[in-house]
Amino acid sequence: MGVDHAQVFHMNKGAGETSYAKNSSVQSKIISIAAPVTDEAIIQVLSTNLPESMGIADLGCSSGPNTLSVISEIIDVIYSKCCHLGRPPPELRISLNDLYSNDFNDIFGSLPAFYNRLKEEKGTGLGPCFISGVPGSFYGRLFPSKSLHFVHSSSSLHWLSQVPPGLDSKASIAINKGRIYMSKTSPQSVLDSYFLQFHKDFSQFLKSRSEEVVLGGRMVLSFMGRRSMDPTTEESCHHFELLAHALMSMVSEGLIPEEKVDTFNAPYYAPCAEEVKSEIQKDGSFIMDRLEAFEIDWDGGVDSCNSIETPSSGQRVAKTIRAVVESMMEAHFGSDIMDDLFLRYAKIVDNHLSKTRAKYINLVVSIIRVDKIEG
Amino acid sequence: MGVDHAQVFHMNKGAGETSYAKNSSVQSKIISIAAPVTDEAIIQVLSTNLPESMGIADLGCSSGPNTLSVISEIIDVIYSKCCHLGRPPPELRISLNDLYSNDFNDIFGSLPAFYNRLKEEKGTGLGPCFISGVPGSFYGRLFPSKSLHFVHSSSSLHWLSQVPPGLDSKASIAINKGRIYMSKTSPQSVLDSYFLQFHKDFSQFLKSRSEEVVLGGRMVLSFMGRRSMDPTTEESCHHFELLAHALMSMVSEGLIPEEKVDTFNAPYYAPCAEEVKSEIQKDGSFIMDRLEAFEIDWDGGVDSCNSIETPSSGQRVAKTIRAVVESMMEAHFGSDIMDDLFLRYAKIVDNHLSKTRAKYINLVVSIIRVDKIEG
Repeated sequence: MGVDHAQVFHMNKGAGETSYAKNSSVQSKIISIAAPVTDEAIIQVLSTNLPESMGIADLGCSSGPNTLSVISEIIDVIYSKCCHLGRPPPELRISLNDLYSNDFNDIFGSLPAFYNRLKEEKGTGLGPCFISGVPGSFYGRLFPSKSLHFVHSSSSLHWLSQVPPGLDSKASIAINKGRIYMSKTSPQSVLDSYFLQFHKDFSQFLKSRSEEVVLGGRMVLSFMGRRSMDPTTEESCHHFELLAHALMSMVSEGLIPEEKVDTFNAPYYAPCAEEVKSEIQKDGSFIMDRLEAFEIDWDGGVDSCNSIETPSSGQRVAKTIRAVVESMMEAHFGSDIMDDLFLRYAKIVDNHLSKTRAKYINLVVSIIRVDKIEG
Repeated sequence: MGVDHAQVFHMNKGAGETSYAKNSSVQSKIISIAAPVTDEAIIQVLSTNLPESMGIADLGCSSGPNTLSVISEIIDVIYSKCCHLGRPPPELRISLNDLYSNDFNDIFGSLPAFYNRLKEEKGTGLGPCFISGVPGSFYGRLFPSKSLHFVHSSSSLHWLSQVPPGLDSKASIAINKGRIYMSKTSPQSVLDSYFLQFHKDFSQFLKSRSEEVVLGGRMVLSFMGRRSMDPTTEESCHHFELLAHALMSMVSEGLIPEEKVDTFNAPYYAPCAEEVKSEIQKDGSFIMDRLEAFEIDWDGGVDSCNSIETPSSGQRVAKTIRAVVESMMEAHFGSDIMDDLFLRYAKIVDNHLSKTRAKYINLVVSIIRVDKIEG
């Protein structure tokens, strides 16, 4: 992309029509679906050894309503478990992490109301709770040694640290599907590059966390994935393929130069369960407790009706994707074409959804920090 | 003020003409003057007991160039002392604190360059360093128990948590000088209310920190103060008195209703050394190592020349004060009058400085966490 991903990539800021805050219901759905796994992991951490002070991190917290709703859920589970055990809740050290360009001002601005609600809900039983913002890439160290008991990450780990280096400049936007449409490269080399980047990033992620998470501590990670071993399967990246179609329709009308599209690559990889398991085994610091795959409707499964006021499924999908990828696409294509691009995308998605019920596959992994198994 | 101070009060954001980032040279001067005290305190912390992991907090960190220059200075002293001791540097946990409305995005945006500079400067000797943002009022708990070894705060503790409650609504803008100009109240009641608020806030500050700072840990606090016991002394608040004059000149021209001025009070108190000492003794968790008073020129002592391009001293003072108080004054007076107000203020200050060399008094206290002395 010719730009530093970690510098320009962020969810759309603010609270406007195209903001992530207003268009993150799919991510919210993913959080709800993974919630039982999260709850169970927290309960296990507390059952093994109730710490006096408990370190919790949400990696890729973004901003908007989902950020603090995750934290709320985590706090509720801890309080309910402690109540059940007849013990006072531990001091909570909660770290919210995302890239340097994330809208932390937005999160911090909503903390006073969050703390007030917490006081009302928990009353005199409320223990100390300290929330901080930790900016930086989770593909490196972020936290002090052995400081975390529970790590949560949702809808983030499918973003690679960068577009794989050495990629032929004429790769493909449908990033782990290096064939047909706008790719003119050898498909296998693209697939190999993407897999290699995933391997480097995910192993670096596990290595960093293994230094930060205490023995017995747990992580619940959920991210886009695929069920098939074949990385070119439709469920892993068809939403990007359709975005590529929208871009190509603009190329054909002379609105974007074709080389701009050829040189755009998204730092995105949706792994399969086997790839994830294999990285966890190679690292050896964590053992798998659970690994599950869920289907999520592209539009988050929101009920749609046919009134004129209600946006179509395609429009909702376009808004969701726009809120996430616009910063990255603007940096490459300029901001002028964004409205047009996502209008076209919405129509293409509507057409696609009229023929098939498209789903994302979300993987949820729950893993436990153990003494390193030398493999 | 009828508004929640902690919600609206922040230094002017961004990097424009009236921003705090561009107009914080007085605060930078204050940091430099207190630097030897800061350095000595850090060296003492490391000499007593070099921790494996060292917690450091800057309270009221604001944004702009001063924020990370303080941190840079602190890191340099730690590295140089450890090098001297022939020991590797501790893992550094650095927390940047300010109110919820502070521009943390600005700070976080400059962290990648900061970390890169650090890597270049320290080379292979660089140890782990984790910087986080901790939003909230330092007049309450902010950090986990016994987690801090060194606390720094500059140009922040003269801001009270709120305008004293129960203040006659017709108090005075020259907040701890409840007489003449626009005050129509009994001066002594205003003075008493301000002192009481300072007492409540400063004792709450010490109580909160005493739970967070480890035994042997240290704090270096610098803030506006006064040498005289008399709170109405010119050196403690004359810069606000002149701002009141500027407001009153606008009242006399019908640009602001007089009652608006009557109902504005700044949550500001510049204590004397005796008041500070007395609070520290009452709390009993810290003992005094050093307490010093410094004089600072209103315009930071920047050399001025008479070229047309160079702003006058009055203009520089007006910009400095505007960058700090504008958010709070806008919330009360509206944004329309700000340009006019600070133009008038600059002229009044120029006139004042033509007759006298006005100085702020800055107190610097260095204190050590000890076993509580029951008093």
